[in-house]
Amino acid sequence: MSAFDELMAFQRQTEALAQVGGRLGWDQETVMPEGAAGQRAEEIGALEGVLHSRRTDPRLDGWLKAAKAPDAAGEAQLRLIRRSHARTMKVPAKLAEEIATVMSLAQGVWAEHRAKEDVAGFLPTLRRVVELKRQEGAALAAGGDPYDALVDDYEPGMTGAAIAAMFDAMRPRLVRLREKVLGAAAPKGVVGVFPAEAQLALSRELATVFGYDWSRGRVDLAVHPFSSGSGHDVRITTRVSETDPFNCFYSTIHEVGHAAYEQGIDAAYALTPVGQGVSMGVHESQSRSYENQLGRSRAFTGWLFGRMREVFGAFGIADAEGFYRAVNRVHPGYIRTEADEVHYNLHIMMRFDLERALIRGELDVADLEAAWNERFRADFGVAVDKPSNGMLQDVHWSCGLFGYFPTYTLGNVYAGCLVKALRGDLPGLDGQMADGDVTAATGWLRERLQRHGGLYEPRDVVRRACGFEPSEGPLLDYLEAKFGAIYGV
Amino acid sequence: MSAFDELMAFQRQTEALAQVGGRLGWDQETVMPEGAAGQRAEEIGALEGVLHSRRTDPRLDGWLKAAKAPDAAGEAQLRLIRRSHARTMKVPAKLAEEIATVMSLAQGVWAEHRAKEDVAGFLPTLRRVVELKRQEGAALAAGGDPYDALVDDYEPGMTGAAIAAMFDAMRPRLVRLREKVLGAAAPKGVVGVFPAEAQLALSRELATVFGYDWSRGRVDLAVHPFSSGSGHDVRITTRVSETDPFNCFYSTIHEVGHAAYEQGIDAAYALTPVGQGVSMGVHESQSRSYENQLGRSRAFTGWLFGRMREVFGAFGIADAEGFYRAVNRVHPGYIRTEADEVHYNLHIMMRFDLERALIRGELDVADLEAAWNERFRADFGVAVDKPSNGMLQDVHWSCGLFGYFPTYTLGNVYAGCLVKALRGDLPGLDGQMADGDVTAATGWLRERLQRHGGLYEPRDVVRRACGFEPSEGPLLDYLEAKFGAIYGV
Repeated sequence: MSAFDELMAFQRQTEALAQVGGRLGWDQETVMPEGAAGQRAEEIGALEGVLHSRRTDPRLDGWLKAAKAPDAAGEAQLRLIRRSHARTMKVPAKLAEEIATVMSLAQGVWAEHRAKEDVAGFLPTLRRVVELKRQEGAALAAGGDPYDALVDDYEPGMTGAAIAAMFDAMRPRLVRLREKVLGAAAPKGVVGVFPAEAQLALSRELATVFGYDWSRGRVDLAVHPFSSGSGHDVRITTRVSETDPFNCFYSTIHEVGHAAYEQGIDAAYALTPVGQGVSMGVHESQSRSYENQLGRSRAFTGWLFGRMREVFGAFGIADAEGFYRAVNRVHPGYIRTEADEVHYNLHIMMRFDLERALIRGELDVADLEAAWNERFRADFGVAVDKPSNGMLQDVHWSCGLFGYFPTYTLGNVYAGCLVKALRGDLPGLDGQMADGDVTAATGWLRERLQRHGGLYEPRDVVRRACGFEPSEGPLLDYLEAKFGAIYGV
Repeated sequence: MSAFDELMAFQRQTEALAQVGGRLGWDQETVMPEGAAGQRAEEIGALEGVLHSRRTDPRLDGWLKAAKAPDAAGEAQLRLIRRSHARTMKVPAKLAEEIATVMSLAQGVWAEHRAKEDVAGFLPTLRRVVELKRQEGAALAAGGDPYDALVDDYEPGMTGAAIAAMFDAMRPRLVRLREKVLGAAAPKGVVGVFPAEAQLALSRELATVFGYDWSRGRVDLAVHPFSSGSGHDVRITTRVSETDPFNCFYSTIHEVGHAAYEQGIDAAYALTPVGQGVSMGVHESQSRSYENQLGRSRAFTGWLFGRMREVFGAFGIADAEGFYRAVNRVHPGYIRTEADEVHYNLHIMMRFDLERALIRGELDVADLEAAWNERFRADFGVAVDKPSNGMLQDVHWSCGLFGYFPTYTLGNVYAGCLVKALRGDLPGLDGQMADGDVTAATGWLRERLQRHGGLYEPRDVVRRACGFEPSEGPLLDYLEAKFGAIYGV
């Protein structure tokens, strides 16, 4: 066997074991008996140990030096393995171990203090997490910006400065749009009780409509919706509130977007580094395209209104136009995960600025709550009423996920570009979506972007798919046009 | 750390990874999307590779030489690790690899040819499997009997000769009982349709009654009922036939017996070699005690009759006595897994004699079908009508499970001893079971046997629990008394 073939055979087993780890996570969130939590932590820890020792295996160095890629896909494989290997080797083993230990406990500490609205009690833990992530960022950056190094984990090639420039260009237009919309009359929402079983049946229908491959996946209930797995086993979860059917339906469509990306990657790449979504931002571009630009479009909601009437009878909305307005209702609120398209990115931008300042040492953990609340009042016009609606609302920082938040907005930006491009190529799309047929759009995304997996760098794959340089323009144009029309502003 | 502590820390991670493997198996049989089968095989293969390299880790030798056990449980841990390590090291790596490859395919070949009733098509595969298992047995036996070496995997300390002596003592009494019973009038069975949901609800109630700990387990549907996992996550499966409710109920009680054993082991032994059922025979003694000696007793079926009348209304059985006879109906049949208590061990004995002869080179694979059919006619009085009712009915041999079959009957023999002993200690048991309360019996089994896990050798733990030397006598006495009374013979 050539060095390349040996490397790929070794890597394939590592990828298979990583899939096993993902499956344990799925099991934990969906079907695991509650009494199994402690044992499961040990099982996951043992598997993480195996993966870590494979990722630091001394043979990797030699294989990577000697390997010659047979083709472009092979080049991409080597690039991704080299990047991951270099990253692993840069972080001292002792630091990696301490991070794993602290993070495994910090999430529980966060949950406990969020329930008690106790910022002060959480700060020592957050301080330790920030300190460790700063050290990790410094080790990875080797003299460069530690925050950039952390961002690179989730969005290779992206930097804090590039994100800041993009966000600075977006923020004034979003704040202005938000103010105009909230000044206009709010549309009516749905009223009534929507039985859980009927919601789940319709959400399965929506998954099918959006191209979910049931032979390689399944849908279960979980507290937080998620997609998990790559290749031939990509499962999603959803949740149900009997008074808010959109929660179930749009969570499902969102997760189908993530899952369809993984399912859409060329099967030849399965169980290789190229055989997975290329970045968090590009992943989110798929889920957001499915959920918002397609799923909340006037055309598709017209079809969904008809199906909901058939399934649930009357629910306080007279016609498809009113339904479209209800689905896209803009409402102020503290919570990011409940935010509409107009507010969502404003939530992200403040988190990005705050976490970047923390990692760069420009903001002390002790000053975070005041900084959060000040920024929230500036962008959202109201005061935070309690920490669980403020800086304690998200799990991310307690898990050490610094550098992750901006990828949500980057996903929206990429979605804006992709759907602009696909609409240009598919002039009949709205007519099809009005009949509940989104296959032209999902087929376009699969063919132009999803099937490539990690073959190209994140920004490259979006540019190749769109045929133009990605920027925030299309997203902002889309939001202003859509919500300007709905609200007459 | 002492050598003992280092060894146990290493072993604990191995046990945790083995639990992960068990979880993958559970997932595959209950919730896995069908399109994931190929990828799952790679995931399991990668995990098996990790486990194999841990079991052959060069450090084990040094630890095992230097380790000093701090107590009796530590001695048992060392004994079990030494046995498993010695076993692994005796089989050449190339042979182990070939066995893994051939067995992973042979089950599919068997299923395909069983569906086509094609013995000739399956024989080349079976020949290869037998050949490999003979080689493995020879490597393990190091000059001794290769079949004994294979039996030892499932039932440490047991030999082919000891089993043959026991079976030879049992067979004439069983054949005689069978003939007498089949000469008498058969009891009536149940009639009607028993809705699946109601069956499952009652089967969950039965699991609770028999002491299943739901905080550390769950019940799902699967084609073949099984129990999986140890320690804090022990899951079972069941199945439903709407015309045969006893299938669901007694499959559930059987699997609860297996699961209760794992759940009943002292929690201090979790994720160690001692923290698991000590052998297949002892495991089966628990499932058979729960299912048959307790679950099919006159006292317990009296309670179950009342519950079934409450849940399902009338089903063609007039009273508790008739219900007891229906539950214990003896019927001739080709299929081992559908056999009643009178027939079951006769199925096992013929498999034992045939597989032992195959491994010892006394029977050629080409002659197996004729030998099977001849023996079946001798013990069961009828000719086999087709291979799927004959030598192609069981999956075991295609999986290389030679030496496994006799543990089923050994389980029945141990169950006979255990229930004789516990009935001696619990004179009020029938009165309690008539009220649906089996906790005295399950508590006795937990306290006397289950909690010890692998602390003692299989036969020892049964003898300690019973207070007498285990033998086939109590089982045969129980069967003759029970079925003699039911059939008036």
